Amino acid sequence: MLGKPRRLALLAEGCFTPLDAKTAVGVLRYRAGEVAAVLDSTRAGRTAAECAGVGGDVPVVADLQAAAARGADSLLIGIAPQGGDLPPSFRAVVRAALERGWDVLSGLHVFLGDDRELAALAAAHGARLVDVRRPPLALRIAAARAADLEALVVLTVGTDCNVGKMTTALELRRALIERGVRAAFVATGQTGIFIADAGVAVDAVPSDFVAGAVEECLIEAARAADVVLVEGQGALQHPAYSCVTLGLLHGAAPAALVLCHDAARARIRRSAADAVGQAILPLEAVRESYETAAGWVAPARVVGAALHTGALDEGPARAACERAAASLGLPATDPVRFGADALAEAIERALERRRAARAPAGRSHASHA
Amino acid sequence: MLGKPRRLALLAEGCFTPLDAKTAVGVLRYRAGEVAAVLDSTRAGRTAAECAGVGGDVPVVADLQAAAARGADSLLIGIAPQGGDLPPSFRAVVRAALERGWDVLSGLHVFLGDDRELAALAAAHGARLVDVRRPPLALRIAAARAADLEALVVLTVGTDCNVGKMTTALELRRALIERGVRAAFVATGQTGIFIADAGVAVDAVPSDFVAGAVEECLIEAARAADVVLVEGQGALQHPAYSCVTLGLLHGAAPAALVLCHDAARARIRRSAADAVGQAILPLEAVRESYETAAGWVAPARVVGAALHTGALDEGPARAACERAAASLGLPATDPVRFGADALAEAIERALERRRAARAPAGRSHASHA
Repeated sequence: MLGKPRRLALLAEGCFTPLDAKTAVGVLRYRAGEVAAVLDSTRAGRTAAECAGVGGDVPVVADLQAAAARGADSLLIGIAPQGGDLPPSFRAVVRAALERGWDVLSGLHVFLGDDRELAALAAAHGARLVDVRRPPLALRIAAARAADLEALVVLTVGTDCNVGKMTTALELRRALIERGVRAAFVATGQTGIFIADAGVAVDAVPSDFVAGAVEECLIEAARAADVVLVEGQGALQHPAYSCVTLGLLHGAAPAALVLCHDAARARIRRSAADAVGQAILPLEAVRESYETAAGWVAPARVVGAALHTGALDEGPARAACERAAASLGLPATDPVRFGADALAEAIERALERRRAARAPAGRSHASHA
Repeated sequence: MLGKPRRLALLAEGCFTPLDAKTAVGVLRYRAGEVAAVLDSTRAGRTAAECAGVGGDVPVVADLQAAAARGADSLLIGIAPQGGDLPPSFRAVVRAALERGWDVLSGLHVFLGDDRELAALAAAHGARLVDVRRPPLALRIAAARAADLEALVVLTVGTDCNVGKMTTALELRRALIERGVRAAFVATGQTGIFIADAGVAVDAVPSDFVAGAVEECLIEAARAADVVLVEGQGALQHPAYSCVTLGLLHGAAPAALVLCHDAARARIRRSAADAVGQAILPLEAVRESYETAAGWVAPARVVGAALHTGALDEGPARAACERAAASLGLPATDPVRFGADALAEAIERALERRRAARAPAGRSHASHA
């Protein structure tokens, strides 16, 4: 991961749950083979699967020493707190990891490499501070180039933050590759970058350059892909993050959108503690908002819905997918729980339509002859 | 300006025109009394008014020595190029200004204070490098607090970049103050910050924090104002800058919008050289897009249109305003050319409606009794 093979200790002290340790959970879902242990002294002795539903038998341990005994050689900050500061309680652990000569991988808004104390410690012990959220040095202004790509660009969009946009894109990549489609994933957030070993954390990019940064990543990814799945961020209806969402939507200029929703959520979460955000609109209205906003620059259509149903039993979960499918007139599934096939098929159809529409008129005539 | 009284030399070498030297023109329009000279050797010997239609008799000169002879003691970078780099030809002038001990004020994306050579020169000569686009150190996530302010928040929005959003907000502040309304201006871009001596350049703020940054400025400005006029940025339909626009719209949560448009422009300018951007939608459609997007977080209504008619003769300019007014069913004017009164009146009516709607039921009864 990020430059060399690693055995990771995921730092999630006091918060190793699916909602609070989003980054740790994402890494465990897609790169569990590289995880030696999860650090959370309040849950030590349990397995990752017991705490977070992913990661199988990866042990949860109390401290760095126990993680080292499991073979860990790098520390990954496993949370993505709102605002992106290093929680004070994490600082001592980061220091101790550097003193062991471990690299520390971080997706926080605050760059550990800019912290004098930590940078000095890293230098003294031959360790690296890897800040994956740091924007690329060369930033470009978008020029609406993505809409002209040969590849089909698919963006996952959502009714709120943390509703499965990254996971849906990754599950769709897997399902499409299994179906023989050359599919690529473009990470746009810290967890996705840890998983994909590439990408750009658009929420840390100065706002003038958000669309340009995603355009750049996407054009690179499209060189060897028929379908490019772009990880969405935020929601058009989110009072703090809509800026990131629209920048992504216009920079990626997708032809197809997959609408992601947490089936158990009724209100937008402005923060982890927030219970009074505005009501989430009906899915049809959210679909309309994304298609309208995309159309300001390049037309896009929602081709299906991905529901996160983790909080529901199986019966209600299936019923929620059926209701979503009926209300949208489109395939709807929980790609983790029920598989992504229905959505992958919808994307294949969108790819065929795109190819047919882009085929030179002469060729189309010839095939009719 | 920015910390102390100054006599400014505005650097606009080779580009002192209204479109290319937007920052210089803004400073000349609102703070001409502090400008000693404009630097553009290709136009030396003329007056500011002859070149750019503003700034009266302020002389255009060929070099720093001539500006010094006019009393200049500070250099202000008078352009806002796309991408925000320091043009190579400007570097020698910045160096020479620092060697004279002049402060250099910049609104570029590239921070002059982070340039080792320039920082060393400044230190050696007791000069300051003032980067007004540098984001505030403490950034906050928005919490949709602006919608609850007592003051009426008015945001200028537009059909494209560079159509008069800052100028309209400033003209409205002046007109409202003349009418006895306590009106404040919140600058959100580099030129506005030079004019207002405060504000935040939201296009340089990491995208996660754009809405939070404007919310913060606005709450501060609302303490002593009945109407807060927020300078808009970009356009929802702009492929590169829509991210900034939506962050501002949701962070400021305005109740009233003023729609700005360049009456002579038919297509969105992706860059100064771009003639192939997408067609600008009819004003009614643009109005609908802003009201729809605002409504995702807090409802807002367009209360009037501000046309930039600089490229038209007076007859066609008046006709353009009349057409806009008829199509929107709202007041429309060029606030610089024909005055901002019609728009100021519309804002006063919006303020009255807001006060009536927010008055406690009891009080409203009492006044009926």
